[in-house]
Amino acid sequence: MRAALYARDQRFVVEDRVPEPPGPGQIQINVAYAGICGTDLHIRQGDMDARVPTPAILGHEASGRIAALGAGVDAGWQVGDPVTVMPLVWCGRCAACRAGHTHVCQRLQVIGVDLPGAMQGRWNVPSSVVVRLPGHLPLDHAALVEPTAVAVHDVRRSGLTPDERAVIVGGGPIGLLIGRVATSQGSDVVLVEPDPHRRGVAEQLGLTTLDPTGIDVESYVDDWTAGDGVPVAFEVSGAAAGVRTAERVLGVRGRLVVVAIHPEPVPVDLNRVFLRELSVVGTRVYTRASFEYAVELLSRGEIPVPALISSVVPLSDVVAAFDALASGGGVVKVLLDCQAG
Amino acid sequence: MRAALYARDQRFVVEDRVPEPPGPGQIQINVAYAGICGTDLHIRQGDMDARVPTPAILGHEASGRIAALGAGVDAGWQVGDPVTVMPLVWCGRCAACRAGHTHVCQRLQVIGVDLPGAMQGRWNVPSSVVVRLPGHLPLDHAALVEPTAVAVHDVRRSGLTPDERAVIVGGGPIGLLIGRVATSQGSDVVLVEPDPHRRGVAEQLGLTTLDPTGIDVESYVDDWTAGDGVPVAFEVSGAAAGVRTAERVLGVRGRLVVVAIHPEPVPVDLNRVFLRELSVVGTRVYTRASFEYAVELLSRGEIPVPALISSVVPLSDVVAAFDALASGGGVVKVLLDCQAG
Repeated sequence: MRAALYARDQRFVVEDRVPEPPGPGQIQINVAYAGICGTDLHIRQGDMDARVPTPAILGHEASGRIAALGAGVDAGWQVGDPVTVMPLVWCGRCAACRAGHTHVCQRLQVIGVDLPGAMQGRWNVPSSVVVRLPGHLPLDHAALVEPTAVAVHDVRRSGLTPDERAVIVGGGPIGLLIGRVATSQGSDVVLVEPDPHRRGVAEQLGLTTLDPTGIDVESYVDDWTAGDGVPVAFEVSGAAAGVRTAERVLGVRGRLVVVAIHPEPVPVDLNRVFLRELSVVGTRVYTRASFEYAVELLSRGEIPVPALISSVVPLSDVVAAFDALASGGGVVKVLLDCQAG
Repeated sequence: MRAALYARDQRFVVEDRVPEPPGPGQIQINVAYAGICGTDLHIRQGDMDARVPTPAILGHEASGRIAALGAGVDAGWQVGDPVTVMPLVWCGRCAACRAGHTHVCQRLQVIGVDLPGAMQGRWNVPSSVVVRLPGHLPLDHAALVEPTAVAVHDVRRSGLTPDERAVIVGGGPIGLLIGRVATSQGSDVVLVEPDPHRRGVAEQLGLTTLDPTGIDVESYVDDWTAGDGVPVAFEVSGAAAGVRTAERVLGVRGRLVVVAIHPEPVPVDLNRVFLRELSVVGTRVYTRASFEYAVELLSRGEIPVPALISSVVPLSDVVAAFDALASGGGVVKVLLDCQAG
């Protein structure tokens, strides 16, 4: 099999390896597709070198078929079953786990970040993280289950109801998916994104878009809501300006949902938080329920996947794929074909 | 009657006036005591000159007895009844009001800020804002109903349960009252305050205190909670350093309650908000239910008022009283006696 190894200093090594058999309690997956995510870009840029043990096999958005079962794995699984992976391993003992919030375990390990990921031909994972896929769901579509689960969790954490409006600040893959998850439940949203290519993709997804370089977003929302402001704003841009936009469009008791990663502290208008009794709500990964609902949304065709997948490239082209994403323009989601070359 | 008028440029004018009779729907209160609050200090420093119509009679923390009833006032009220005032006037038509959150009305007017307040001998207010006091509650104690209601609302917004721990950052009157409201429901709290006088008052109130200049608060909370962090932190200091302390002591899904006013945007560690799924929750004034519960807490003796009232001075000493509070040291709550001098 082929495997792509992140080897620090922006480098990847693609090598041929003999697959190891699955250990006790593990399932071996014949990986079909692995998506590249913003976290992977951060890792490749070296931002997470203190955390990621190198050389590292990245990849936490994946689909495939079961290749082999380790000893003691539940007999309900069969070789050939189409599957994806919910890539979280929690400790079960910390305060978060004891409170039932295992996805924010204080010692959370993410497969593909802290543990070997999907950018290889055969991937051994604990059977507990394997999630069944319906047979009719194409495996390239299924590679989007993980980011869709993020969006499902974000929308659930926001408390957005079908009769409520929301502003989404940032039109990367997660912002776009939040848009579709929100509209699939009947909510009315606008997506704020300066990049014309991403706005174009958002429009293919049926989302209303705003170009913040050409329009005053706050005035737009004022008109849209007759001065009330929206109850929910998703900050998915990772930029301080995005936080400012999100806090300005919220009405009384509005929820500012922090989806993007902001490595440095960001100025927040706490006076507005006070005056309007706003909530700034952090949201991270997903619960099992959100993950399974993401499978359902994709299975029902609620996520127009072809508009989101910019390209599918062989695993050996991993460097070019990362470069295309890092350059930012004209690309949304890139999948690595982990069986091809 | 005497009235103290804020006349800009840090000045007050104390003058004798002939009281006006209450208008239709108004109740005239013979004001016993008016407390001075942090907002009053901001007004006197000129921070709110754009909002406050001058000359202005300040004062939104008060107690007294009914002196006269205007036409059409409910016959349930009697001259001589002991009362306080919940000093909020809302529009009833904006999104906040329509959603039932009248206390954060988008056009909220605060009596004593936007409308004439309690720092006068006779005070005409709409009967709708008058709140009955039990006969056995001393009127100086009753002047603390309003700030106690703020604390009740803060604790309710935080969702703090009796089995949960909380950190209170800032030991001014509101921080101290939050401490007592929290402990009165069985919650365990520590109060962080650098000023030794305020720590002394907190200890008289039975609260555990920490001096952040002499102890590492984060390590203390780590030990206290066996590494879990606390579920609730109240930011009552108004300082950026207080926000930093509050965000560092919170465990997974913790709530950072923004009580203090931060006129300028403050750096917030949104990465921690994301990683731990924290919520930053704004809280402002109170509901009628919280206000009436504050009356109940004071009536039951749950708030040790004598420890909180630093001095009671005649209305004519308003300037000295403001100066003492502005200097910050050795003072918690100062009441103006609105019948004396």
